[in-house]
Amino acid sequence: MKILGIDPGLRITGFGVIEKQGAQLSYVASGTVSTPTEADLPDRLKIILKSVGEIIETYRPDCAAIEKVFVNVNPQSTLLLGQARGAAICALVGADLAISEYTALQVKQAVVGHGKAQKKQVQDMVKRLLSLPAPPKSDAADALGVAICHANAFDTLRAMQEAGSLKPKSGFRIRRGRLIQ
Amino acid sequence: MKILGIDPGLRITGFGVIEKQGAQLSYVASGTVSTPTEADLPDRLKIILKSVGEIIETYRPDCAAIEKVFVNVNPQSTLLLGQARGAAICALVGADLAISEYTALQVKQAVVGHGKAQKKQVQDMVKRLLSLPAPPKSDAADALGVAICHANAFDTLRAMQEAGSLKPKSGFRIRRGRLIQ
Repeated sequence: MKILGIDPGLRITGFGVIEKQGAQLSYVASGTVSTPTEADLPDRLKIILKSVGEIIETYRPDCAAIEKVFVNVNPQSTLLLGQARGAAICALVGADLAISEYTALQVKQAVVGHGKAQKKQVQDMVKRLLSLPAPPKSDAADALGVAICHANAFDTLRAMQEAGSLKPKSGFRIRRGRLIQ
Repeated sequence: MKILGIDPGLRITGFGVIEKQGAQLSYVASGTVSTPTEADLPDRLKIILKSVGEIIETYRPDCAAIEKVFVNVNPQSTLLLGQARGAAICALVGADLAISEYTALQVKQAVVGHGKAQKKQVQDMVKRLLSLPAPPKSDAADALGVAICHANAFDTLRAMQEAGSLKPKSGFRIRRGRLIQ
Protein backbone atom coordinates (compact mmCIF):
# COMPACT_ATOMS: atom_id res chain seq x y z
CA MET A 1 0.00 0.00 0.00
CA LYS A 2 1.40 3.35 -1.08
CA ILE A 3 0.44 6.33 1.11
CA LEU A 4 0.69 10.00 0.17
CA GLY A 5 1.06 12.34 3.15
CA ILE A 6 0.36 16.08 2.82
CA ASP A 7 1.32 18.93 5.16
CA PRO A 8 -0.74 21.79 3.67
CA GLY A 9 0.25 25.44 3.55
CA LEU A 10 -0.22 28.41 1.21
CA ARG A 11 3.47 29.25 0.88
CA ILE A 12 4.81 25.70 1.24
CA THR A 13 2.92 22.42 0.97
CA GLY A 14 4.98 19.40 2.03
CA PHE A 15 4.42 15.98 0.48
CA GLY A 16 5.77 12.53 1.29
CA VAL A 17 5.11 9.12 -0.25
CA ILE A 18 5.84 5.91 1.64
CA GLU A 19 5.19 2.26 0.90
CA LYS A 20 3.86 -0.13 3.52
CA GLN A 21 4.47 -3.87 3.14
CA GLY A 22 3.26 -5.67 6.25
CA ALA A 23 4.90 -3.85 9.16
CA GLN A 24 7.70 -2.60 6.91
CA LEU A 25 7.66 1.05 5.82
CA SER A 26 9.86 2.32 3.01
CA TYR A 27 10.53 5.75 1.56
CA VAL A 28 9.36 6.50 -1.98
CA ALA A 29 9.59 10.28 -2.39
CA SER A 30 9.14 13.61 -0.63
CA GLY A 31 9.46 17.32 -1.27
CA THR A 32 7.60 20.62 -1.23
CA VAL A 33 5.33 22.67 -3.48
CA SER A 34 6.02 26.41 -3.14
CA THR A 35 3.89 29.30 -4.35
CA PRO A 36 5.20 32.84 -4.91
CA THR A 37 3.90 35.25 -2.24
CA GLU A 38 3.50 38.01 -4.83
CA ALA A 39 1.04 35.99 -6.96
CA ASP A 40 -2.78 36.28 -6.75
CA LEU A 41 -4.52 33.84 -4.43
CA PRO A 42 -6.32 31.97 -7.28
CA ASP A 43 -2.98 31.53 -9.09
CA ARG A 44 -1.35 30.21 -5.90
CA LEU A 45 -4.21 27.75 -5.33
CA LYS A 46 -3.86 26.63 -8.96
CA ILE A 47 -0.17 25.84 -8.38
CA ILE A 48 -1.08 23.70 -5.34
CA LEU A 49 -3.93 21.94 -7.20
CA LYS A 50 -1.84 21.16 -10.29
CA SER A 51 1.36 20.24 -8.44
CA VAL A 52 -0.32 17.84 -6.00
CA GLY A 53 -2.16 16.42 -9.04
CA GLU A 54 1.20 15.80 -10.76
CA ILE A 55 2.61 14.16 -7.60
CA ILE A 56 -0.38 11.76 -7.60
CA GLU A 57 0.11 10.98 -11.30
CA THR A 58 3.82 10.33 -10.76
CA TYR A 59 3.67 8.14 -7.64
CA ARG A 60 0.12 6.71 -7.91
CA PRO A 61 -0.63 6.35 -4.17
CA ASP A 62 -3.46 4.06 -2.96
CA CYS A 63 -4.66 6.49 -0.31
CA ALA A 64 -3.82 9.86 1.19
CA ALA A 65 -3.47 11.41 4.64
CA ILE A 66 -3.45 15.14 5.34
CA GLU A 67 -2.60 17.10 8.44
CA LYS A 68 -5.45 18.87 10.24
CA VAL A 69 -4.26 22.44 10.51
CA PHE A 70 -4.73 24.44 13.67
CA VAL A 71 -6.30 27.85 13.57
CA ASN A 72 -3.93 30.77 13.57
CA VAL A 73 -4.02 33.76 15.92
CA ASN A 74 -4.56 35.90 12.84
CA PRO A 75 -8.01 35.10 11.30
CA GLN A 76 -6.84 36.30 7.86
CA SER A 77 -3.99 33.75 7.96
CA THR A 78 -6.46 31.06 9.05
CA LEU A 79 -8.61 31.88 6.02
CA LEU A 80 -5.61 31.69 3.66
CA LEU A 81 -4.40 28.42 5.18
CA GLY A 82 -7.93 27.01 4.87
CA GLN A 83 -8.01 27.84 1.16
CA ALA A 84 -4.60 26.24 0.60
CA ARG A 85 -5.71 23.09 2.44
CA GLY A 86 -8.92 23.09 0.38
CA ALA A 87 -6.85 23.16 -2.82
CA ALA A 88 -4.67 20.23 -1.69
CA ILE A 89 -7.77 18.22 -0.74
CA CYS A 90 -9.31 19.02 -4.15
CA ALA A 91 -6.27 17.49 -5.88
CA LEU A 92 -6.72 14.34 -3.75
CA VAL A 93 -10.50 13.98 -4.19
CA GLY A 94 -10.12 14.87 -7.87
CA ALA A 95 -8.00 11.70 -8.17
CA ASP A 96 -10.63 9.73 -6.16
CA LEU A 97 -8.22 9.02 -3.30
CA ALA A 98 -9.63 8.16 0.13
CA ILE A 99 -8.39 10.81 2.58
CA SER A 100 -7.68 10.45 6.28
CA GLU A 101 -7.03 13.46 8.48
CA TYR A 102 -4.68 13.61 11.48
CA THR A 103 -3.80 16.39 13.90
CA ALA A 104 -0.16 17.46 14.41
CA LEU A 105 -0.45 15.91 17.88
CA GLN A 106 -1.43 12.52 16.44
CA VAL A 107 1.43 12.70 13.93
CA LYS A 108 4.00 13.50 16.64
CA GLN A 109 2.66 10.70 18.83
CA ALA A 110 2.88 8.23 15.95
CA VAL A 111 6.37 9.28 14.86
CA VAL A 112 8.17 10.33 18.06
CA GLY A 113 5.96 8.72 20.72
CA HIS A 114 4.70 11.88 22.41
CA GLY A 115 2.76 14.94 21.30
CA LYS A 116 5.23 17.57 22.49
CA ALA A 117 8.03 16.63 20.09
CA GLN A 118 10.04 19.40 18.46
CA LYS A 119 10.39 19.71 14.67
CA LYS A 120 13.98 18.42 14.86
CA GLN A 121 12.85 15.27 16.70
CA VAL A 122 10.20 14.58 14.04
CA GLN A 123 12.83 14.98 11.30
CA ASP A 124 15.25 12.63 13.11
CA MET A 125 12.61 9.96 13.77
CA VAL A 126 11.35 10.09 10.15
CA LYS A 127 14.97 9.56 9.05
CA ARG A 128 15.27 6.53 11.36
CA LEU A 129 11.87 5.00 10.59
CA LEU A 130 12.41 5.23 6.82
CA SER A 131 16.18 4.46 6.92
CA LEU A 132 17.08 7.70 5.16
CA PRO A 133 20.70 8.86 4.76
CA ALA A 134 19.81 12.29 6.24
CA PRO A 135 16.80 13.90 7.96
CA PRO A 136 14.37 15.41 5.43
CA LYS A 137 13.59 19.12 5.55
CA SER A 138 10.85 20.13 7.99
CA ASP A 139 7.82 20.40 5.64
CA ALA A 140 8.68 17.16 3.84
CA ALA A 141 9.35 15.43 7.20
CA ASP A 142 5.93 16.52 8.48
CA ALA A 143 4.28 15.15 5.33
CA LEU A 144 6.16 11.85 5.67
CA GLY A 145 5.10 11.86 9.34
CA VAL A 146 1.41 12.11 8.36
CA ALA A 147 1.87 9.15 5.99
CA ILE A 148 3.61 7.13 8.78
CA CYS A 149 0.79 8.06 11.18
CA HIS A 150 -1.76 6.73 8.69
CA ALA A 151 0.24 3.51 8.17
CA ASN A 152 0.13 2.90 11.96
CA ALA A 153 -3.55 3.84 12.25
CA PHE A 154 -4.30 1.42 9.43
CA ASP A 155 -2.66 -1.42 11.38
CA THR A 156 -4.62 -0.50 14.51
CA LEU A 157 -7.88 -0.48 12.59
CA ARG A 158 -7.13 -3.85 11.02
CA ALA A 159 -6.15 -5.33 14.39
CA MET A 160 -9.43 -4.07 15.86
CA GLN A 161 -11.31 -5.61 12.98
CA GLU A 162 -9.50 -8.95 13.32
CA ALA A 163 -10.00 -9.00 17.10
CA GLY A 164 -13.69 -8.48 16.55
CA SER A 165 -13.64 -5.10 18.29
CA LEU A 166 -15.19 -3.65 15.19
CA LYS A 167 -18.43 -5.58 15.19
CA PRO A 168 -20.74 -5.11 12.23
CA LYS A 169 -23.45 -3.87 14.60
CA SER A 170 -21.16 -1.16 16.04
CA GLY A 171 -21.93 0.90 12.98
CA PHE A 172 -18.21 1.20 12.22
CA ARG A 173 -16.51 -0.40 9.24
CA ILE A 174 -13.23 -0.01 7.40
CA ARG A 175 -13.35 1.17 3.82
CA ARG A 176 -10.15 1.76 1.84
CA GLY A 177 -8.13 2.14 5.01
CA ARG A 178 -10.52 4.53 6.70
CA LEU A 179 -12.71 4.03 9.73
CA ILE A 180 -16.22 4.89 8.60
CA GLN A 181 -19.22 5.30 10.86
CA MET B 1 -19.20 38.08 -22.31
CA LYS B 2 -20.63 35.47 -19.95
CA ILE B 3 -19.72 35.90 -16.26
CA LEU B 4 -20.02 33.25 -13.54
CA GLY B 5 -20.45 34.68 -10.03
CA ILE B 6 -19.80 32.54 -6.95
CA ASP B 7 -20.82 33.14 -3.32
CA PRO B 8 -18.79 30.44 -1.56
CA GLY B 9 -19.81 28.50 1.54
CA LEU B 10 -19.33 25.01 2.95
CA ARG B 11 -23.03 24.26 3.44
CA ILE B 12 -24.34 26.33 0.53
CA THR B 13 -22.40 27.75 -2.42
CA GLY B 14 -24.43 30.15 -4.55
CA PHE B 15 -23.80 30.52 -8.28
CA GLY B 16 -25.13 32.92 -10.88
CA VAL B 17 -24.41 33.29 -14.59
CA ILE B 18 -25.13 36.52 -16.47
CA GLU B 19 -24.42 37.70 -19.99
CA LYS B 20 -23.12 41.18 -20.74
CA GLN B 21 -23.65 42.70 -24.18
CA GLY B 22 -22.48 46.31 -24.16
CA ALA B 23 -24.18 47.91 -21.16
CA GLN B 24 -26.97 45.31 -21.24
CA LEU B 25 -26.96 42.55 -18.63
CA SER B 26 -29.13 39.48 -18.96
CA TYR B 27 -29.83 36.51 -16.73
CA VAL B 28 -28.59 33.07 -17.81
CA ALA B 29 -28.88 30.83 -14.74
CA SER B 30 -28.49 30.69 -10.97
CA GLY B 31 -28.84 28.29 -8.07
CA THR B 32 -27.03 26.70 -5.16
CA VAL B 33 -24.74 23.76 -4.45
CA SER B 34 -25.48 22.18 -1.06
CA THR B 35 -23.34 19.71 0.88
CA PRO B 36 -24.68 17.43 3.65
CA THR B 37 -23.47 18.57 7.08
CA GLU B 38 -23.04 14.94 8.20
CA ALA B 39 -20.52 14.14 5.44
CA ASP B 40 -16.71 14.20 5.87
CA LEU B 41 -14.99 17.45 4.95
CA PRO B 42 -13.12 15.93 1.93
CA ASP B 43 -16.43 14.55 0.60
CA ARG B 44 -18.10 17.95 1.00
CA LEU B 45 -15.23 19.70 -0.80
CA LYS B 46 -15.50 17.10 -3.57
CA ILE B 47 -19.20 17.97 -4.05
CA ILE B 48 -18.31 21.67 -4.36
CA LEU B 49 -15.41 20.96 -6.77
CA LYS B 50 -17.44 18.65 -9.02
CA SER B 51 -20.66 20.68 -8.96
CA VAL B 52 -19.00 24.01 -9.78
CA GLY B 53 -17.10 22.10 -12.50
CA GLU B 54 -20.42 20.89 -13.95
CA ILE B 55 -21.85 24.42 -13.84
CA ILE B 56 -18.84 25.64 -15.85
CA GLU B 57 -19.27 22.81 -18.39
CA THR B 58 -22.98 23.58 -18.75
CA TYR B 59 -22.84 27.38 -19.10
CA ARG B 60 -19.28 27.88 -20.42
CA PRO B 61 -18.58 31.31 -18.85
CA ASP B 62 -15.74 33.51 -20.18
CA CYS B 63 -14.61 34.63 -16.73
CA ALA B 64 -15.52 34.26 -13.08
CA ALA B 65 -15.95 36.48 -10.03
CA ILE B 66 -16.01 35.22 -6.45
CA GLU B 67 -16.94 36.93 -3.20
CA LYS B 68 -14.16 37.63 -0.73
CA VAL B 69 -15.39 36.07 2.48
CA PHE B 70 -15.01 37.84 5.79
CA VAL B 71 -13.46 36.07 8.72
CA ASN B 72 -15.86 34.60 11.24
CA VAL B 73 -15.81 35.13 15.00
CA ASN B 74 -15.26 31.39 15.32
CA PRO B 75 -11.79 30.49 13.91
CA GLN B 76 -12.90 26.91 13.23
CA SER B 77 -15.73 28.23 11.02
CA THR B 78 -13.26 30.54 9.26
CA LEU B 79 -11.06 27.52 8.51
CA LEU B 80 -14.02 25.54 7.11
CA LEU B 81 -15.22 28.48 5.02
CA GLY B 82 -11.68 28.95 3.69
CA GLN B 83 -11.53 25.32 2.58
CA ALA B 84 -14.93 25.59 0.85
CA ARG B 85 -13.81 28.76 -0.95
CA GLY B 86 -10.56 27.02 -1.91
CA ALA B 87 -12.59 24.18 -3.47
CA ALA B 88 -14.75 26.60 -5.49
CA ILE B 89 -11.64 28.45 -6.71
CA CYS B 90 -10.05 25.11 -7.69
CA ALA B 91 -13.05 24.34 -9.92
CA LEU B 92 -12.60 27.76 -11.60
CA VAL B 93 -8.82 27.59 -12.06
CA GLY B 94 -9.13 23.94 -13.12
CA ALA B 95 -11.20 25.26 -16.06
CA ASP B 96 -8.60 27.99 -16.72
CA LEU B 97 -11.04 30.81 -15.96
CA ALA B 98 -9.68 34.22 -14.97
CA ILE B 99 -10.99 35.03 -11.49
CA SER B 100 -11.74 38.41 -9.96
CA GLU B 101 -12.46 38.83 -6.26
CA TYR B 102 -14.87 41.33 -4.69
CA THR B 103 -15.85 42.01 -1.09
CA ALA B 104 -19.51 41.90 0.02
CA LEU B 105 -19.25 45.70 0.40
CA GLN B 106 -18.19 46.13 -3.24
CA VAL B 107 -21.01 43.85 -4.38
CA LYS B 108 -23.62 45.78 -2.40
CA GLN B 109 -22.29 49.09 -3.70
CA ALA B 110 -22.43 47.81 -7.29
CA VAL B 111 -25.92 46.31 -6.97
CA VAL B 112 -27.78 48.55 -4.52
CA GLY B 113 -25.62 51.68 -4.54
CA HIS B 114 -24.41 51.59 -0.93
CA GLY B 115 -22.49 49.13 1.22
CA LYS B 116 -25.01 48.83 4.02
CA ALA B 117 -27.76 47.20 1.96
CA GLN B 118 -29.77 44.37 3.51
CA LYS B 119 -30.05 40.93 1.88
CA LYS B 120 -33.63 41.71 0.81
CA GLN B 121 -32.50 44.88 -0.99
CA VAL B 122 -29.80 42.92 -2.86
CA GLN B 123 -32.41 40.34 -3.92
CA ASP B 124 -34.82 43.05 -5.11
CA MET B 125 -32.16 44.97 -7.05
CA VAL B 126 -30.83 41.78 -8.69
CA LYS B 127 -34.43 41.05 -9.77
CA ARG B 128 -34.74 44.58 -11.26
CA LEU B 129 -31.30 44.69 -12.91
CA LEU B 130 -31.79 41.31 -14.59
CA SER B 131 -35.57 41.73 -15.28
CA LEU B 132 -36.46 38.59 -13.36
CA PRO B 133 -40.09 37.64 -12.62
CA ALA B 134 -39.27 37.22 -8.89
CA PRO B 135 -36.29 37.95 -6.59
CA PRO B 136 -33.84 35.02 -6.50
CA LYS B 137 -33.11 33.28 -3.20
CA SER B 138 -30.43 34.91 -1.05
CA ASP B 139 -27.36 32.77 -1.95
CA ALA B 140 -28.16 32.81 -5.67
CA ALA B 141 -28.85 36.58 -5.49
CA ASP B 142 -25.46 37.19 -3.86
CA ALA B 143 -23.75 35.15 -6.58
CA LEU B 144 -25.59 37.06 -9.32
CA GLY B 145 -24.59 40.25 -7.46
CA VAL B 146 -20.88 39.31 -7.67
CA ALA B 147 -21.28 38.72 -11.40
CA ILE B 148 -23.01 42.12 -11.82
CA CYS B 149 -20.25 43.77 -9.75
CA HIS B 150 -17.65 42.29 -12.10
CA ALA B 151 -19.59 43.43 -15.19
CA ASN B 152 -19.53 47.02 -13.83
CA ALA B 153 -15.87 46.83 -12.79
CA PHE B 154 -15.03 45.58 -16.27
CA ASP B 155 -16.65 48.69 -17.81
CA THR B 156 -14.74 50.95 -15.41
CA LEU B 157 -11.44 49.27 -16.28
CA ARG B 158 -12.10 49.59 -20.00
CA ALA B 159 -13.11 53.25 -19.62
CA MET B 160 -9.86 53.91 -17.73
CA GLN B 161 -7.92 52.17 -20.46
CA GLU B 162 -9.67 54.12 -23.22
CA ALA B 163 -9.23 57.43 -21.37
CA GLY B 164 -5.52 56.72 -21.13
CA SER B 165 -5.64 56.52 -17.34
CA LEU B 166 -4.08 53.12 -17.63
CA LYS B 167 -0.81 54.12 -19.26
CA PRO B 168 1.53 51.33 -20.27
CA LYS B 169 4.20 52.82 -18.01
CA SER B 170 1.87 52.74 -14.97
CA GLY B 171 2.62 49.07 -14.67
CA PHE B 172 -1.08 48.25 -14.86
CA ARG B 173 -2.74 46.41 -17.71
CA ILE B 174 -5.99 44.61 -18.36
CA ARG B 175 -5.83 40.93 -19.10
CA ARG B 176 -8.99 38.90 -19.63
CA GLY B 177 -11.08 41.43 -17.76
CA ARG B 178 -8.74 41.73 -14.80
CA LEU B 179 -6.59 44.63 -13.72
CA ILE B 180 -3.06 43.26 -13.44
CA GLN B 181 -0.10 45.04 -11.91
